[in-house]
Amino acid sequence: MKLLITGGGGFLGARLARTLLARGSLAGRPITRMVLTDIAPPPADLLADHRVEARTGALLSQTDALRDEPFDGVFHLASAVSGECEADFDLGLRSNLDSTRALLDAIRANVNAGGKAPRVVFSSSVAVFGPDPAVPLPALVADDTLPAPQTSYGTHKLICEHLVADYTRKGYIDGRAARLMTVTVRPGTPNGAASSFFSGIIREPLAGIEAICPVDASVSHPVSSPTRTVDGLIAVYEASREAFCGRTALNLPALNVRVADMLDALAEVAGSAVRARVRFERDERIAGIVANWPGGASATRASKLGLKPHTNFAEIIRQYIDDCAAAPNAAQTLKGLSQ
Amino acid sequence: MKLLITGGGGFLGARLARTLLARGSLAGRPITRMVLTDIAPPPADLLADHRVEARTGALLSQTDALRDEPFDGVFHLASAVSGECEADFDLGLRSNLDSTRALLDAIRANVNAGGKAPRVVFSSSVAVFGPDPAVPLPALVADDTLPAPQTSYGTHKLICEHLVADYTRKGYIDGRAARLMTVTVRPGTPNGAASSFFSGIIREPLAGIEAICPVDASVSHPVSSPTRTVDGLIAVYEASREAFCGRTALNLPALNVRVADMLDALAEVAGSAVRARVRFERDERIAGIVANWPGGASATRASKLGLKPHTNFAEIIRQYIDDCAAAPNAAQTLKGLSQ
Repeated sequence: MKLLITGGGGFLGARLARTLLARGSLAGRPITRMVLTDIAPPPADLLADHRVEARTGALLSQTDALRDEPFDGVFHLASAVSGECEADFDLGLRSNLDSTRALLDAIRANVNAGGKAPRVVFSSSVAVFGPDPAVPLPALVADDTLPAPQTSYGTHKLICEHLVADYTRKGYIDGRAARLMTVTVRPGTPNGAASSFFSGIIREPLAGIEAICPVDASVSHPVSSPTRTVDGLIAVYEASREAFCGRTALNLPALNVRVADMLDALAEVAGSAVRARVRFERDERIAGIVANWPGGASATRASKLGLKPHTNFAEIIRQYIDDCAAAPNAAQTLKGLSQ
Repeated sequence: MKLLITGGGGFLGARLARTLLARGSLAGRPITRMVLTDIAPPPADLLADHRVEARTGALLSQTDALRDEPFDGVFHLASAVSGECEADFDLGLRSNLDSTRALLDAIRANVNAGGKAPRVVFSSSVAVFGPDPAVPLPALVADDTLPAPQTSYGTHKLICEHLVADYTRKGYIDGRAARLMTVTVRPGTPNGAASSFFSGIIREPLAGIEAICPVDASVSHPVSSPTRTVDGLIAVYEASREAFCGRTALNLPALNVRVADMLDALAEVAGSAVRARVRFERDERIAGIVANWPGGASATRASKLGLKPHTNFAEIIRQYIDDCAAAPNAAQTLKGLSQ
């Protein structure tokens, strides 16, 4: 089978690609070809795989060519992040809304020309939820909680959920939208996401660097590890339409955790000296955005697909440390552990 | 003040224009200029008003010019109807999604160039609601019921609700989305809407013509008269942001009525000979679409704005007969009453 992963050069996309290539098959069919699109090329190990073809450039510049190219399956992960979309309204519209529309229309053109409708997994986000005077947020946002997004990022994700549902209804795709929780711990450097610090307050101290937490320790948030997130995307792909249950989006499982608990887990796993590298310094802009996010999420439909959240944050930190230890730059990323 | 009404040549748009011109003011300000855009020109009485300027053509072909033209207020009513959108996917995307986006972006360009953000009322629809295996429909859909649209029309309306909310959040417009119930009794000839028969089974018998009802008499539906619908759009425009309550869309008031009750009211108002002109002949395509519509709606937020539904369908029929009697073609439209 031939797969397309948009955002396939990014952290999550590359991890999904790596996982799928290692499995060798998806939904019972061997993966013979995998196209990765992204604004930057994917990591070298992926480029070295003979099944992989990387295409570098904005997705919107690549969709015209996709009209003539059939795929069996698509993971649509490409996206500008929340902070970027708040700072640049046009960028958000272009990267998150127009690109998705163009991708869906390229697939539709292919199907209209006689191609088979591919299975499409769209990575939506817990950011579709937010409080509104007419819609107070529940303690845990559920699959069927009414979304009232408070960012352009969340708005575009929600809009694309509904495009995916309607293109599915019309038979152009077999689409499923899965709402990702905040993926933690992300490796590398901070990105433009307002949620970036949820990774930073773990990653930086482990690397021996001071980290600033821009929100109060009492802030609660639904998070998921990279591994569980990738597992979730694959399970959603492999689910039958009946098991997916309808066309509306589902929540992927979350560990609902307070910042204070994250830091306690850091002390437990890595010691109090590492924990001490996190300093609280409130950033009103970020705190304001985060205040409009749900404190936790439930995932009833995902649990019926066999997906489970981590039960404690220490597990997530240990997974990150294991990932780092296996990578060539372990001396840097885990420098804080030996100090 | 200068107003724009898109879809201003259509039945509801022209009626809104006429009502506003007769009032002479909106939200306390005199109406000095009113631009009506539509694919067809508005009725002669509107064209004769010195405040009115008609612009004929698809909205999408007019939005570029709007980038340099400030408006104080906008009623965005232009839309392809549900049946058309189901039959022609591209038409639906273009007329209902791309046109709204282009209109909002034209306004945004104007505001970015120093203009004042206009107040914008977007006419959404009860068609945003539908059943999904994960989201069963309640007996009455409420302001905060989770929308799961089952048509492209409903999907695009819902998407535009969220665009309006986000452009409002960013300060480009002061936007409000109001979900219209099925407007009954529409004058004229059947249109492409799957709901067209809700008017036809009253209008045709009154004109002395046989009408076919394509669904069972037990089908219940939320309807509203043209007058109450126009009153609703104006009240939503005039509401303060606080009174509108948040940025999510609200339901306009509905009379929730069964087809059987509509026909009983017709017999009551116009006599059993008129009622006898309605024949039941099930149309699977239309019945299938209607089966995915809610049987009724509530309108808590609209009632706080002082808006009320009719209490019985006979009132709505009498309003229609009064409208017809005042029009030049009363001999045709009410021919069935004298037979």
